[in-house]
Amino acid sequence: MTFFDDLLDALTWAAVAVLAIAGALSASRKQMDPVGFMLIACLCAFGGGTVRDVILGVPVFWLVAPGMVALAAGLALAVFLGAHLVERRFVVLLWADAVGLGLFAVLGAEKAMRVGAAPWVAVLMGTITATAGGMLRDIICAETPLVLRREIYVTAAALGAAGAALLLEAGVDRTVALSCGIALGFGVRAAAIVGRWSLPTYRARPGRDYPDRR
Amino acid sequence: MTFFDDLLDALTWAAVAVLAIAGALSASRKQMDPVGFMLIACLCAFGGGTVRDVILGVPVFWLVAPGMVALAAGLALAVFLGAHLVERRFVVLLWADAVGLGLFAVLGAEKAMRVGAAPWVAVLMGTITATAGGMLRDIICAETPLVLRREIYVTAAALGAAGAALLLEAGVDRTVALSCGIALGFGVRAAAIVGRWSLPTYRARPGRDYPDRR
Amino acid sequence: MTFFDDLLDALTWAAVAVLAIAGALSASRKQMDPVGFMLIACLCAFGGGTVRDVILGVPVFWLVAPGMVALAAGLALAVFLGAHLVERRFVVLLWADAVGLGLFAVLGAEKAMRVGAAPWVAVLMGTITATAGGMLRDIICAETPLVLRREIYVTAAALGAAGAALLLEAGVDRTVALSCGIALGFGVRAAAIVGRWSLPTYRARPGRDYPDRR
Repeated sequence: MTFFDDLLDALTWAAVAVLAIAGALSASRKQMDPVGFMLIACLCAFGGGTVRDVILGVPVFWLVAPGMVALAAGLALAVFLGAHLVERRFVVLLWADAVGLGLFAVLGAEKAMRVGAAPWVAVLMGTITATAGGMLRDIICAETPLVLRREIYVTAAALGAAGAALLLEAGVDRTVALSCGIALGFGVRAAAIVGRWSLPTYRARPGRDYPDRR
Repeated sequence: MTFFDDLLDALTWAAVAVLAIAGALSASRKQMDPVGFMLIACLCAFGGGTVRDVILGVPVFWLVAPGMVALAAGLALAVFLGAHLVERRFVVLLWADAVGLGLFAVLGAEKAMRVGAAPWVAVLMGTITATAGGMLRDIICAETPLVLRREIYVTAAALGAAGAALLLEAGVDRTVALSCGIALGFGVRAAAIVGRWSLPTYRARPGRDYPDRR
Repeated sequence: MTFFDDLLDALTWAAVAVLAIAGALSASRKQMDPVGFMLIACLCAFGGGTVRDVILGVPVFWLVAPGMVALAAGLALAVFLGAHLVERRFVVLLWADAVGLGLFAVLGAEKAMRVGAAPWVAVLMGTITATAGGMLRDIICAETPLVLRREIYVTAAALGAAGAALLLEAGVDRTVALSCGIALGFGVRAAAIVGRWSLPTYRARPGRDYPDRR
């Protein structure tokens, strides 16, 4: 149990670090000043988990672990000073974001189930935890919203959260359940990035009063 | 009292169902994938009530009623598969949204007063409950924000909430007070849809340093 | 202590009043109807503090002080009726916003430290308290987001919050610490308005695979 708590804690720090870097890289594409870098990094890293904790009614995770705020702000400054040394920043942003997505989807679902939520509520909480930070970033930076892009993103988060929730509900060992969920969420997102996958989207099919416009 | 609680509960389920359908119909206009449908349906159905419950400091309503999440997700899938069979989807979206507006405005005001809020605070809470889901949907789907459209929408929610709050404050029977509030909110919105009503908006009137530009 | 609490209370009312006026002036630029004025005024005045209180897990400040909602709504109506009498409304908006920024940055940091947050967490909370209302207003009114404008705004809030947090941490008398923080935050913002200051922003510096595009 103690080992497991340590593991969850380490995963949360890792997710915060990669999402802070992803947020700061977004800020660099928008040519912000250093304080803007720190704010967007914090929004990205803490946004999803904050929404989760507020909805679940538990203490917000970064309030009780102040080192996380220092970590996110420090990484944001490091990106401000050093991002031009990285050859292909957009690729780093994409993969940091994918790692954060896998981690936070599963951590969100697990935390929801620990406070007694039903499995499908846990899947929604995991999806929100993984995607709310990116949504906030897109909204505040005036980028194309996440849900309108033709790529598998929300779905990868939902699958990772669902995998972990189902295995936990089935009584599988927590370390195994969480690892499988993280692997599933990150794997689907990674495959979507590499293979440029997308799900079939809604198209107006022949209806009664207008012809199919495609 | 038990009957009244059952009634409030049934109204909440009805509001969730119509707003989930309205959200999914919005997703269909943006050509999303099935998971996008489910996410937007949940945002629309749960957004306003979540903001209300978090601000009031009470347990978030859908966390303790997990069937609601299943209902919203199921309706979203049904819309994904069946929306092309509906002749005039935009009209359905408009009216589903109007019903949800009336219900949630009154439910939000009632819940605020039950935890001891003053009547005008309850009116604000009702207005937020009824409109926050639609605002979130517009922001995340990059549509024209609700408050910038020239139609009576926020005002209908505010009137419904105010009606219910005033009658409750005056000691009128709860069932009567809530019914009147819902009828007022929905009625004003329905009249606005049918009659294309709008309130007088702010216009720069003759000032000192520039002429009226209209 | 009683005097100090009264002072904090008076400052909160003052911040609510100036931000409600700033919000209503934004609504006037978007030609909204009276209910839209009241909603945007409340969003601007209460948005930041609500996010702060919800994250800190304390009762939301305007729920327990219902007169504030009446004040914000009344000021919004007054602006709707009287804004055309003011010669240069944009300048009033700018300075009302600057006063609100200084007050809420320090009040947010102070409230966070009172519930036991570490100083750098308090700086983040103060920054969020001062800027979240304006961010919400920009998002909901579809204006250029705050963080993308080339002016010192978020930085002024962060500096004011940091000044107050450092002085409080150093054991300085609260009235002195808060006054210095407010003066610093407002002063930096005022200087930025008057002198059109901006911080150095991120620019792509000579990297390995592409030349500096500036």
